[in-house]
Amino acid sequence: MQIAVLGTGIVGRTLAARASELGHQVTIGTRDPTATLDRPADGRGNASFGEWQGATGVRLATFAEASEGAELVINATGGETTMAALTLAGAAQLAGKVLLDVSNPLDFSQGFPPTLFVKDTDSLAEQIQLAFPQVRVVKSLNTLTAALMVHPEILQGESTVFVSGDAADAKALVTGLLAEFGHTDVLDLGGLSTARGTEMFLPLWLRLWGALGTPMHNIKVVRSA
Amino acid sequence: MQIAVLGTGIVGRTLAARASELGHQVTIGTRDPTATLDRPADGRGNASFGEWQGATGVRLATFAEASEGAELVINATGGETTMAALTLAGAAQLAGKVLLDVSNPLDFSQGFPPTLFVKDTDSLAEQIQLAFPQVRVVKSLNTLTAALMVHPEILQGESTVFVSGDAADAKALVTGLLAEFGHTDVLDLGGLSTARGTEMFLPLWLRLWGALGTPMHNIKVVRSA
Repeated sequence: MQIAVLGTGIVGRTLAARASELGHQVTIGTRDPTATLDRPADGRGNASFGEWQGATGVRLATFAEASEGAELVINATGGETTMAALTLAGAAQLAGKVLLDVSNPLDFSQGFPPTLFVKDTDSLAEQIQLAFPQVRVVKSLNTLTAALMVHPEILQGESTVFVSGDAADAKALVTGLLAEFGHTDVLDLGGLSTARGTEMFLPLWLRLWGALGTPMHNIKVVRSA
Repeated sequence: MQIAVLGTGIVGRTLAARASELGHQVTIGTRDPTATLDRPADGRGNASFGEWQGATGVRLATFAEASEGAELVINATGGETTMAALTLAGAAQLAGKVLLDVSNPLDFSQGFPPTLFVKDTDSLAEQIQLAFPQVRVVKSLNTLTAALMVHPEILQGESTVFVSGDAADAKALVTGLLAEFGHTDVLDLGGLSTARGTEMFLPLWLRLWGALGTPMHNIKVVRSA
């Protein structure tokens, strides 16, 4: 299907490359494509966007152009820039689309570990839904580092990924993509307000990173017998 | 060892009964022992304290009396009453003790699901440590329903329990008790501030209860290969 991935960072690139590899038509959306292509490598080991793009079949366009033709829009921007990016994508371009929100409301202003700028009486996913009522928002994958979003089999055993959303058909579309990515334990938590649970998981996720020394970890929900 | 369990609810009773069964000398602490013994069953299927106590070897005393003779004090009161209970237990009686805090800062004033009255820039565990600097606070078991705290083998597979604390010897004492309870995957998250992670897990824990229809669930941390 036609997929727009909003965000040119590691999360956006990882999702875009994997979806493209799986045969989807993927466009990455950014604020200013020329500026994105002109930006040099970040000096932290990540290739420049231009270098990265050359090895993929992924197109680059503005947030609005990418969103317009897409059936599924994936918000892979940082939580702090999500609302600005979606505003640039445009309510008209997003209308009727499924929006998979993988972002987290992380506030890095006080250093590491970040805290949350939306806490458990609300969620970023619900704020997006409120601001863009014509979109069907599904929250998922935000409990995973980028590599595990698209290759959960890297871990030692099966782990769980969560889905929250108010529209059943939108959740079904996302769940199908999750299966293509290799997720075998997809747990539907219910309506979009359950994203309060998965967004609030980040403080524990960050401490697990600290204790294990790597972001390559996930949780498996263990049920009763 | 001598263990004081503060709190006469299901969590306190469950921990006290299991520790007693394992051979520890357990005293449950309460505000007013006479009132506790006079209170009838709650009408929700739980026995009165007196009925429950008759089937165990557990003694009942005031918060202060229970704490005074204990090597380990377990805070099994509700988060909203924790500070009042510990104040009644007394800084002098608690001094030098290991305090295992299994509580969560849950605010039920707006109905179900509850929200948190301490969020990720602090934790109830750290507030306890700050108020009682002579105590060695260890946070653990707060990510589990009472039955699973003491019988994790009920679940379909191995699951993880977390430990946070600033004193290594206190964590070792608690970890020993966790092993007696049957926990085989105890993950030391680090200092007490990592309790911010496990306390903030409650919003997801509550949604898992909603989705699975039971509080009998836990998570297993799946590591990278």
